[in-house]
Amino acid sequence: MTERPVILICNDDGVNAPGLRFLIEAVSRLGDVIAVAPTEPRSGQSSAISVNAPLRIQRKPDFEMAEVYAVNGTPVDCVKLAMHTVLKDRRIDIMLSGINHGSNAGNCVVYSGTMGAAFEACMLGIPAIGFSLLHHSWKADFTQCGPYVAMITEAVLKKGLPKGICLNVNIPAKCIPKGLMVVKSAEGYWTEEYVDYKDPQGNDFYFLSGRFVDEHPESRATDNYWLDREYVTVVPVRPDPTASDMIDTVRDLLS
Amino acid sequence: MTERPVILICNDDGVNAPGLRFLIEAVSRLGDVIAVAPTEPRSGQSSAISVNAPLRIQRKPDFEMAEVYAVNGTPVDCVKLAMHTVLKDRRIDIMLSGINHGSNAGNCVVYSGTMGAAFEACMLGIPAIGFSLLHHSWKADFTQCGPYVAMITEAVLKKGLPKGICLNVNIPAKCIPKGLMVVKSAEGYWTEEYVDYKDPQGNDFYFLSGRFVDEHPESRATDNYWLDREYVTVVPVRPDPTASDMIDTVRDLLS
Repeated sequence: MTERPVILICNDDGVNAPGLRFLIEAVSRLGDVIAVAPTEPRSGQSSAISVNAPLRIQRKPDFEMAEVYAVNGTPVDCVKLAMHTVLKDRRIDIMLSGINHGSNAGNCVVYSGTMGAAFEACMLGIPAIGFSLLHHSWKADFTQCGPYVAMITEAVLKKGLPKGICLNVNIPAKCIPKGLMVVKSAEGYWTEEYVDYKDPQGNDFYFLSGRFVDEHPESRATDNYWLDREYVTVVPVRPDPTASDMIDTVRDLLS
Repeated sequence: MTERPVILICNDDGVNAPGLRFLIEAVSRLGDVIAVAPTEPRSGQSSAISVNAPLRIQRKPDFEMAEVYAVNGTPVDCVKLAMHTVLKDRRIDIMLSGINHGSNAGNCVVYSGTMGAAFEACMLGIPAIGFSLLHHSWKADFTQCGPYVAMITEAVLKKGLPKGICLNVNIPAKCIPKGLMVVKSAEGYWTEEYVDYKDPQGNDFYFLSGRFVDEHPESRATDNYWLDREYVTVVPVRPDPTASDMIDTVRDLLS
Protein backbone atom coordinates (compact mmCIF):
# COMPACT_ATOMS: atom_id res chain seq x y z
CA MET A 1 0.00 0.00 0.00
CA THR A 2 1.33 3.45 -0.92
CA GLU A 3 1.51 5.96 1.93
CA ARG A 4 -0.63 9.04 1.54
CA PRO A 5 1.31 12.28 0.98
CA VAL A 6 1.77 14.54 4.02
CA ILE A 7 0.55 18.10 3.38
CA LEU A 8 1.58 20.99 5.66
CA ILE A 9 -0.74 24.00 5.47
CA CYS A 10 0.02 27.45 6.91
CA ASN A 11 -1.34 30.94 6.33
CA ASP A 12 -1.01 34.52 7.54
CA ASP A 13 -4.66 35.32 8.27
CA GLY A 14 -4.63 33.13 11.37
CA VAL A 15 -6.02 29.80 12.45
CA ASN A 16 -9.63 31.03 12.35
CA ALA A 17 -9.55 32.35 8.77
CA PRO A 18 -12.13 30.86 6.39
CA GLY A 19 -9.42 30.69 3.68
CA LEU A 20 -7.44 28.19 5.77
CA ARG A 21 -10.44 25.94 6.19
CA PHE A 22 -11.23 26.16 2.50
CA LEU A 23 -7.66 25.22 1.53
CA ILE A 24 -7.83 22.17 3.80
CA GLU A 25 -11.11 21.11 2.22
CA ALA A 26 -9.79 21.62 -1.31
CA VAL A 27 -6.80 19.30 -0.90
CA SER A 28 -7.70 16.84 1.87
CA ARG A 29 -8.47 14.06 -0.62
CA LEU A 30 -4.86 14.32 -1.84
CA GLY A 31 -3.16 13.47 1.48
CA ASP A 32 -2.96 13.78 5.26
CA VAL A 33 -3.22 17.43 6.25
CA ILE A 34 -1.52 19.11 9.21
CA ALA A 35 -2.37 22.81 9.52
CA VAL A 36 -0.16 25.14 11.59
CA ALA A 37 -1.30 28.77 11.55
CA PRO A 38 -0.78 31.95 13.57
CA THR A 39 -3.03 32.42 16.62
CA GLU A 40 -3.98 35.88 15.29
CA PRO A 41 -4.01 37.46 11.82
CA ARG A 42 -0.45 38.34 10.76
CA SER A 43 -0.83 39.94 7.36
CA GLY A 44 2.10 41.86 5.88
CA GLN A 45 4.66 39.91 7.89
CA SER A 46 6.83 38.90 4.92
CA SER A 47 9.58 36.52 6.13
CA ALA A 48 9.62 38.02 9.65
CA ILE A 49 10.74 35.75 12.50
CA SER A 50 10.20 36.19 16.24
CA VAL A 51 13.63 36.96 17.64
CA ASN A 52 14.12 36.63 21.40
CA ALA A 53 10.43 35.96 22.14
CA PRO A 54 8.91 32.79 23.66
CA LEU A 55 6.89 30.79 21.11
CA ARG A 56 4.21 28.24 21.86
CA ILE A 57 2.39 25.75 19.65
CA GLN A 58 -1.06 24.57 20.74
CA ARG A 59 -3.30 21.83 19.41
CA LYS A 60 -6.72 23.15 18.38
CA PRO A 61 -9.92 21.17 17.90
CA ASP A 62 -9.36 19.16 14.70
CA PHE A 63 -11.21 20.07 11.56
CA GLU A 64 -12.93 17.14 9.89
CA MET A 65 -10.00 16.53 7.60
CA ALA A 66 -6.91 17.88 9.40
CA GLU A 67 -4.90 18.14 12.59
CA VAL A 68 -4.81 21.85 13.45
CA TYR A 69 -2.27 23.81 15.55
CA ALA A 70 -1.83 27.48 16.41
CA VAL A 71 1.47 29.34 16.99
CA ASN A 72 1.77 32.74 18.71
CA GLY A 73 4.11 34.01 16.02
CA THR A 74 4.60 34.89 12.38
CA PRO A 75 3.85 32.67 9.36
CA VAL A 76 7.56 31.74 9.13
CA ASP A 77 7.56 30.87 12.85
CA CYS A 78 4.68 28.48 12.11
CA VAL A 79 6.69 26.58 9.49
CA LYS A 80 9.88 26.48 11.56
CA LEU A 81 8.18 25.49 14.82
CA ALA A 82 6.01 22.86 13.09
CA MET A 83 9.18 21.23 11.73
CA HIS A 84 10.75 21.34 15.21
CA THR A 85 7.74 19.85 17.04
CA VAL A 86 4.67 18.16 15.53
CA LEU A 87 6.43 17.31 12.24
CA LYS A 88 9.81 16.38 13.73
CA ASP A 89 11.31 13.43 11.84
CA ARG A 90 8.26 13.32 9.57
CA ARG A 91 8.52 13.64 5.79
CA ILE A 92 6.58 16.60 4.35
CA ASP A 93 5.61 16.10 0.72
CA ILE A 94 4.22 19.55 0.05
CA MET A 95 3.57 22.83 1.85
CA LEU A 96 0.58 25.02 0.97
CA SER A 97 -0.03 28.54 2.26
CA GLY A 98 -3.34 30.40 2.34
CA ILE A 99 -5.80 30.75 0.90
CA ASN A 100 -4.97 34.38 1.58
CA HIS A 101 -7.82 36.87 1.91
CA GLY A 102 -6.49 39.43 -0.59
CA SER A 103 -4.11 39.74 -3.55
CA ASN A 104 -0.44 38.84 -3.44
CA ALA A 105 0.12 39.86 -7.05
CA GLY A 106 2.52 42.60 -8.18
CA ASN A 107 5.02 43.54 -5.48
CA CYS A 108 2.62 42.45 -2.68
CA VAL A 109 4.62 39.22 -2.84
CA VAL A 110 7.46 41.06 -1.05
CA TYR A 111 5.33 41.95 2.00
CA SER A 112 3.17 38.83 2.05
CA GLY A 113 3.21 36.57 5.10
CA THR A 114 1.46 33.93 3.00
CA MET A 115 4.44 33.91 0.67
CA GLY A 116 6.90 34.27 3.59
CA ALA A 117 5.69 30.88 4.85
CA ALA A 118 6.01 29.38 1.35
CA PHE A 119 9.54 30.82 0.99
CA GLU A 120 10.50 29.20 4.30
CA ALA A 121 9.30 25.75 3.26
CA CYS A 122 11.01 26.17 -0.13
CA MET A 123 14.32 27.00 1.56
CA LEU A 124 13.92 23.79 3.60
CA GLY A 125 13.64 21.83 0.36
CA ILE A 126 9.86 21.29 0.50
CA PRO A 127 7.77 21.98 -2.64
CA ALA A 128 5.67 25.00 -1.66
CA ILE A 129 2.74 26.98 -3.08
CA GLY A 130 1.07 30.14 -1.81
CA PHE A 131 -2.57 30.71 -2.79
CA SER A 132 -4.39 34.06 -2.62
CA LEU A 133 -7.91 35.17 -3.55
CA LEU A 134 -8.38 38.77 -4.71
CA HIS A 135 -10.98 39.50 -2.06
CA HIS A 136 -10.30 40.84 1.45
CA SER A 137 -13.58 39.94 3.10
CA TRP A 138 -13.87 37.26 5.75
CA LYS A 139 -17.03 36.29 3.87
CA ALA A 140 -15.28 35.86 0.49
CA ASP A 141 -16.56 33.03 -1.66
CA PHE A 142 -13.70 30.58 -2.23
CA THR A 143 -15.75 28.11 -4.31
CA GLN A 144 -14.19 29.07 -7.62
CA CYS A 145 -10.69 28.46 -6.18
CA GLY A 146 -11.26 24.75 -5.58
CA PRO A 147 -10.50 23.17 -8.97
CA TYR A 148 -7.40 25.32 -9.54
CA VAL A 149 -6.01 24.75 -6.04
CA ALA A 150 -6.48 20.99 -6.40
CA MET A 151 -5.06 20.84 -9.94
CA ILE A 152 -1.91 22.85 -9.15
CA THR A 153 -1.32 20.96 -5.88
CA GLU A 154 -1.74 17.60 -7.63
CA ALA A 155 0.69 18.55 -10.43
CA VAL A 156 3.34 19.68 -7.92
CA LEU A 157 2.83 16.57 -5.75
CA LYS A 158 3.38 14.45 -8.84
CA LYS A 159 6.22 16.35 -10.56
CA GLY A 160 7.86 18.44 -7.81
CA LEU A 161 9.30 21.90 -8.38
CA PRO A 162 12.79 23.01 -9.42
CA LYS A 163 15.20 23.41 -6.46
CA GLY A 164 14.88 26.81 -4.79
CA ILE A 165 11.61 27.70 -6.58
CA CYS A 166 8.09 27.99 -5.15
CA LEU A 167 4.82 29.24 -6.65
CA ASN A 168 2.77 32.38 -6.02
CA VAL A 169 -0.80 31.65 -7.17
CA ASN A 170 -3.45 34.39 -7.33
CA ILE A 171 -7.11 33.78 -8.07
CA PRO A 172 -9.56 36.43 -9.31
CA ALA A 173 -12.62 37.09 -7.15
CA LYS A 174 -16.31 36.91 -8.02
CA CYS A 175 -16.00 34.92 -11.24
CA ILE A 176 -15.31 31.51 -12.71
CA PRO A 177 -11.69 31.88 -13.89
CA LYS A 178 -11.21 31.62 -17.65
CA GLY A 179 -7.96 29.68 -17.36
CA LEU A 180 -4.43 29.77 -15.90
CA MET A 181 -1.41 31.85 -16.94
CA VAL A 182 2.20 31.34 -15.79
CA VAL A 183 3.69 34.84 -15.75
CA LYS A 184 5.92 37.28 -13.84
CA SER A 185 4.99 39.70 -11.03
CA ALA A 186 3.74 43.07 -12.25
CA GLU A 187 6.33 45.80 -11.66
CA GLY A 188 5.15 48.95 -9.94
CA TYR A 189 5.02 50.92 -6.74
CA TRP A 190 2.54 52.05 -4.08
CA THR A 191 1.14 55.55 -3.94
CA GLU A 192 -0.93 57.51 -1.39
CA GLU A 193 0.51 55.14 1.16
CA TYR A 194 -0.93 56.62 4.37
CA VAL A 195 -4.06 58.20 5.73
CA ASP A 196 -3.16 61.03 8.12
CA TYR A 197 -4.84 61.54 11.52
CA LYS A 198 -4.49 63.77 14.55
CA ASP A 199 -4.92 62.41 18.09
CA PRO A 200 -6.84 64.45 20.75
CA GLN A 201 -3.54 66.11 21.75
CA GLY A 202 -2.99 67.34 18.19
CA ASN A 203 -0.19 64.88 17.40
CA ASP A 204 0.01 63.22 13.99
CA PHE A 205 -0.39 59.52 13.41
CA TYR A 206 -0.78 57.45 10.25
CA PHE A 207 -2.43 54.27 9.01
CA LEU A 208 -1.03 52.34 6.06
CA SER A 209 -3.28 52.47 3.02
CA GLY A 210 -2.41 53.18 -0.62
CA ARG A 211 -2.85 51.61 -4.01
CA PHE A 212 -0.52 49.80 -6.40
CA VAL A 213 0.49 51.62 -9.59
CA ASP A 214 1.35 49.13 -12.33
CA GLU A 215 4.26 50.53 -14.37
CA HIS A 216 3.33 48.49 -17.44
CA PRO A 217 -0.45 47.95 -17.27
CA GLU A 218 -0.60 46.74 -20.89
CA SER A 219 2.15 44.13 -20.54
CA ARG A 220 0.69 40.70 -21.21
CA ALA A 221 3.58 39.14 -19.26
CA THR A 222 2.35 40.04 -15.75
CA ASP A 223 0.03 38.64 -13.10
CA ASN A 224 -2.02 41.82 -12.67
CA TYR A 225 -2.77 41.93 -16.41
CA TRP A 226 -4.27 38.45 -16.40
CA LEU A 227 -6.00 38.75 -13.02
CA ASP A 228 -7.81 41.82 -14.40
CA ARG A 229 -8.97 39.57 -17.25
CA GLU A 230 -10.28 36.87 -14.86
CA TYR A 231 -7.43 34.36 -15.19
CA VAL A 232 -5.68 32.50 -12.37
CA THR A 233 -1.99 33.49 -12.35
CA VAL A 234 1.05 31.47 -11.28
CA VAL A 235 4.39 33.21 -10.74
CA PRO A 236 7.48 31.06 -10.11
CA VAL A 237 9.39 32.79 -7.30
CA ARG A 238 12.87 32.30 -5.82
CA PRO A 239 13.41 33.12 -2.11
CA ASP A 240 17.16 33.69 -2.67
CA PRO A 241 17.31 37.32 -3.88
CA THR A 242 20.85 37.05 -5.30
CA ALA A 243 20.94 38.74 -8.71
CA SER A 244 23.61 36.48 -10.23
CA ASP A 245 23.24 38.23 -13.59
CA MET A 246 24.39 41.49 -11.97
CA ILE A 247 27.58 40.30 -10.26
CA ASP A 248 29.89 41.42 -13.10
CA THR A 249 28.08 44.75 -13.48
CA VAL A 250 28.42 45.51 -9.75
CA ARG A 251 32.05 44.38 -9.73
CA ASP A 252 32.79 46.90 -12.51
CA LEU A 253 30.84 49.59 -10.70
CA LEU A 254 32.87 49.17 -7.49
CA SER A 255 36.31 48.88 -9.12
CA MET B 1 27.08 75.58 -6.54
CA THR B 2 26.23 71.89 -6.64
CA GLU B 3 23.67 70.70 -4.10
CA ARG B 4 24.90 68.13 -1.59
CA PRO B 5 23.39 64.66 -2.04
CA VAL B 6 20.56 63.72 0.33
CA ILE B 7 21.24 60.46 2.18
CA LEU B 8 18.43 58.55 3.94
CA ILE B 9 19.66 56.14 6.62
CA CYS B 10 17.54 53.44 8.29
CA ASN B 11 18.29 50.29 10.26
CA ASP B 12 16.59 47.46 12.13
CA ASP B 13 18.47 47.64 15.43
CA GLY B 14 16.64 50.83 16.41
CA VAL B 15 17.41 54.51 16.75
CA ASN B 16 19.77 53.97 19.69
CA ALA B 17 22.00 51.36 18.02
CA PRO B 18 25.70 52.24 17.82
CA GLY B 19 25.77 50.87 14.25
CA LEU B 20 23.36 53.62 13.13
CA ARG B 21 25.54 56.31 14.62
CA PHE B 22 28.63 54.81 13.05
CA LEU B 23 27.00 54.69 9.60
CA ILE B 24 26.04 58.36 9.89
CA GLU B 25 29.60 59.28 10.85
CA ALA B 26 31.09 57.21 8.01
CA VAL B 27 29.12 58.97 5.25
CA SER B 28 28.22 62.42 6.59
CA ARG B 29 30.98 64.10 4.57
CA LEU B 30 29.28 62.77 1.39
CA GLY B 31 25.92 64.55 1.84
CA ASP B 32 23.07 65.68 4.08
CA VAL B 33 21.94 62.82 6.29
CA ILE B 34 18.40 62.15 7.49
CA ALA B 35 18.15 59.06 9.73
CA VAL B 36 14.77 57.39 10.33
CA ALA B 37 14.96 54.28 12.49
CA PRO B 38 12.64 52.10 14.58
CA THR B 39 11.97 53.23 18.15
CA GLU B 40 12.96 49.76 19.37
CA PRO B 41 15.17 46.98 17.92
CA ARG B 42 13.28 45.17 15.13
CA SER B 43 15.67 42.45 14.00
CA GLY B 44 14.36 39.64 11.81
CA GLN B 45 11.51 41.74 10.45
CA SER B 46 12.27 41.13 6.78
CA SER B 47 9.93 43.29 4.63
CA ALA B 48 7.18 43.29 7.29
CA ILE B 49 4.79 46.27 7.32
CA SER B 50 2.46 47.40 10.10
CA VAL B 51 -1.04 46.67 8.82
CA ASN B 52 -3.94 48.35 10.58
CA ALA B 53 -1.80 49.87 13.36
CA PRO B 54 -1.28 53.57 14.10
CA LEU B 55 2.25 54.75 13.23
CA ARG B 56 4.01 57.81 14.56
CA ILE B 57 7.24 59.53 13.56
CA GLN B 58 9.06 61.61 16.17
CA ARG B 59 12.02 63.96 15.89
CA LYS B 60 14.87 62.94 18.19
CA PRO B 61 17.76 65.10 19.40
CA ASP B 62 19.97 65.57 16.31
CA PHE B 63 23.29 63.84 16.09
CA GLU B 64 26.13 66.15 15.19
CA MET B 65 25.81 65.29 11.51
CA ALA B 66 22.19 64.26 10.93
CA GLU B 67 18.53 64.92 11.52
CA VAL B 68 17.22 61.89 13.41
CA TYR B 69 13.67 60.49 13.64
CA ALA B 70 12.13 57.42 15.27
CA VAL B 71 9.13 55.40 14.02
CA ASN B 72 7.14 52.95 16.16
CA GLY B 73 7.18 50.33 13.39
CA THR B 74 9.27 48.06 11.21
CA PRO B 75 12.28 49.01 9.08
CA VAL B 76 10.03 49.14 5.99
CA ASP B 77 7.57 51.36 7.86
CA CYS B 78 10.50 53.73 8.52
CA VAL B 79 11.27 54.09 4.81
CA LYS B 80 7.64 54.44 3.76
CA LEU B 81 6.68 56.89 6.50
CA ALA B 82 9.84 58.96 5.99
CA MET B 83 8.88 59.37 2.32
CA HIS B 84 5.34 60.36 3.34
CA THR B 85 6.38 62.94 5.96
CA VAL B 86 9.85 64.40 6.55
CA LEU B 87 11.08 63.60 3.03
CA LYS B 88 7.88 64.44 1.19
CA ASP B 89 8.67 66.12 -2.13
CA ARG B 90 12.38 65.87 -1.38
CA ARG B 91 14.79 64.07 -3.69
CA ILE B 92 16.65 61.15 -2.05
CA ASP B 93 19.97 60.36 -3.73
CA ILE B 94 20.80 57.22 -1.82
CA MET B 95 19.41 55.06 0.99
CA LEU B 96 21.73 53.24 3.41
CA SER B 97 20.65 50.66 5.97
CA GLY B 98 22.56 49.55 9.08
CA ILE B 99 25.22 49.11 10.07
CA ASN B 100 23.54 45.95 11.31
CA HIS B 101 24.84 44.32 14.46
CA GLY B 102 25.25 40.79 13.04
CA SER B 103 25.64 38.96 9.73
CA ASN B 104 23.18 39.19 6.86
CA ALA B 105 25.15 36.76 4.71
CA GLY B 106 23.81 33.44 3.41
CA ASN B 107 20.04 33.20 3.65
CA CYS B 108 19.91 35.69 6.57
CA VAL B 109 19.19 38.20 3.81
CA VAL B 110 15.65 36.75 3.61
CA TYR B 111 14.84 37.50 7.28
CA SER B 112 16.82 40.71 7.59
CA GLY B 113 15.05 43.93 8.51
CA THR B 114 18.18 45.81 7.46
CA MET B 115 17.75 44.41 3.97
CA GLY B 116 13.95 44.80 4.13
CA ALA B 117 14.48 48.57 4.41
CA ALA B 118 16.98 48.51 1.51
CA PHE B 119 14.53 46.46 -0.62
CA GLU B 120 11.83 49.05 0.04
CA ALA B 121 13.98 51.98 -1.07
CA CYS B 122 15.11 49.99 -4.12
CA MET B 123 11.48 49.33 -5.12
CA LEU B 124 10.88 53.09 -4.86
CA GLY B 125 13.68 53.67 -7.36
CA ILE B 126 16.29 54.86 -4.84
CA PRO B 127 19.82 53.37 -4.98
CA ALA B 128 20.07 51.36 -1.73
CA ILE B 129 22.75 49.53 0.23
CA GLY B 130 22.47 47.43 3.41
CA PHE B 131 25.58 47.16 5.59
CA SER B 132 26.14 44.51 8.27
CA LEU B 133 29.04 43.74 10.60
CA LEU B 134 29.55 40.11 11.66
CA HIS B 135 29.37 40.93 15.35
CA HIS B 136 26.21 40.96 17.47
CA SER B 137 27.48 42.96 20.42
CA TRP B 138 26.26 46.48 21.14
CA LYS B 139 29.96 47.15 21.88
CA ALA B 140 31.17 45.93 18.48
CA ASP B 141 34.05 47.88 16.98
CA PHE B 142 32.91 49.40 13.69
CA THR B 143 36.19 51.18 12.94
CA GLN B 144 37.28 48.76 10.23
CA CYS B 145 33.96 49.29 8.39
CA GLY B 146 34.56 52.96 7.71
CA PRO B 147 36.70 52.95 4.55
CA TYR B 148 34.58 50.26 2.85
CA VAL B 149 31.26 51.90 3.75
CA ALA B 150 32.48 55.24 2.40
CA MET B 151 34.02 53.74 -0.76
CA ILE B 152 30.92 51.70 -1.71
CA THR B 153 28.55 54.59 -0.92
CA GLU B 154 30.65 57.00 -2.95
CA ALA B 155 30.77 54.65 -5.96
CA VAL B 156 26.98 54.16 -5.90
CA LEU B 157 26.33 57.89 -5.46
CA LYS B 158 28.50 58.52 -8.53
CA LYS B 159 27.41 55.65 -10.78
CA GLY B 160 23.99 54.55 -9.49
CA LEU B 161 22.80 50.94 -9.49
CA PRO B 162 20.94 48.93 -12.14
CA LYS B 163 17.12 49.31 -11.91
CA GLY B 164 15.59 46.92 -9.37
CA ILE B 165 18.95 45.99 -7.81
CA CYS B 166 20.33 46.89 -4.35
CA LEU B 167 23.43 45.74 -2.47
CA ASN B 168 23.87 43.49 0.57
CA VAL B 169 27.27 44.31 2.10
CA ASN B 170 28.75 42.22 4.93
CA ILE B 171 31.90 43.12 6.81
CA PRO B 172 34.02 40.66 8.83
CA ALA B 173 34.50 41.43 12.53
CA LYS B 174 37.68 41.88 14.51
CA CYS B 175 40.08 42.38 11.61
CA ILE B 176 41.23 44.78 8.92
CA PRO B 177 39.48 43.35 5.83
CA LYS B 178 41.85 42.04 3.13
CA GLY B 179 39.69 43.35 0.27
CA LEU B 180 36.24 43.24 -1.29
CA MET B 181 34.53 40.44 -3.22
CA VAL B 182 31.30 40.73 -5.26
CA VAL B 183 29.65 37.32 -4.92
CA LYS B 184 26.34 35.48 -4.40
CA SER B 185 24.61 34.54 -1.14
CA ALA B 186 25.74 31.21 0.31
CA GLU B 187 23.07 28.54 -0.09
CA GLY B 188 22.13 26.56 2.98
CA TYR B 189 19.65 26.04 5.75
CA TRP B 190 19.31 26.47 9.51
CA THR B 191 19.57 23.58 11.94
CA GLU B 192 18.87 23.15 15.69
CA GLU B 193 16.50 26.06 15.28
CA TYR B 194 14.99 26.21 18.77
CA VAL B 195 15.94 25.83 22.41
CA ASP B 196 13.15 24.03 24.30
CA TYR B 197 11.83 25.19 27.69
CA LYS B 198 9.06 24.28 30.13
CA ASP B 199 7.11 26.94 32.01
CA PRO B 200 6.23 26.48 35.74
CA GLN B 201 2.96 24.80 34.66
CA GLY B 202 4.87 22.21 32.64
CA ASN B 203 3.92 23.65 29.24
CA ASP B 204 6.45 23.79 26.44
CA PHE B 205 7.77 26.99 24.93
CA TYR B 206 10.61 27.72 22.50
CA PHE B 207 13.17 30.38 21.69
CA LEU B 208 14.61 30.75 18.21
CA SER B 209 18.27 29.82 18.00
CA GLY B 210 20.10 27.62 15.48
CA ARG B 211 23.07 27.81 13.17
CA PHE B 212 23.44 28.12 9.40
CA VAL B 213 24.66 25.07 7.51
CA ASP B 214 26.43 26.10 4.30
CA GLU B 215 25.61 23.55 1.58
CA HIS B 216 28.76 24.36 -0.40
CA PRO B 217 31.33 25.57 2.15
CA GLU B 218 34.18 25.27 -0.37
CA SER B 219 32.48 27.31 -3.11
CA ARG B 220 34.56 30.41 -3.81
CA ALA B 221 31.45 32.08 -5.28
CA THR B 222 29.68 32.85 -1.97
CA ASP B 223 29.66 35.53 0.70
CA ASN B 224 30.24 33.17 3.62
CA TYR B 225 33.37 31.74 1.97
CA TRP B 226 35.00 35.16 1.68
CA LEU B 227 33.76 36.49 5.02
CA ASP B 228 35.46 33.49 6.67
CA ARG B 229 38.64 34.61 4.91
CA GLU B 230 38.34 38.21 6.19
CA TYR B 231 37.03 39.88 3.02
CA VAL B 232 34.14 42.36 2.77
CA THR B 233 31.42 40.84 0.57
CA VAL B 234 28.92 42.57 -1.72
CA VAL B 235 25.91 40.63 -3.05
CA PRO B 236 23.72 42.30 -5.69
CA VAL B 237 20.12 41.49 -4.69
CA ARG B 238 16.77 41.91 -6.43
CA PRO B 239 13.65 42.52 -4.29
CA ASP B 240 11.36 41.14 -7.04
CA PRO B 241 11.48 37.37 -6.45
CA THR B 242 10.06 36.45 -9.89
CA ALA B 243 12.12 33.57 -11.33
CA SER B 244 11.74 34.58 -14.99
CA ASP B 245 14.05 31.75 -16.06
CA MET B 246 11.56 29.23 -14.63
CA ILE B 247 8.35 30.43 -16.32
CA ASP B 248 8.57 27.91 -19.19
CA THR B 249 9.51 25.05 -16.85
CA VAL B 250 6.54 25.76 -14.58
CA ARG B 251 4.19 26.18 -17.56
CA ASP B 252 5.20 22.68 -18.74
CA LEU B 253 4.83 21.28 -15.26
CA LEU B 254 1.24 22.56 -14.93
CA SER B 255 0.06 21.62 -18.41
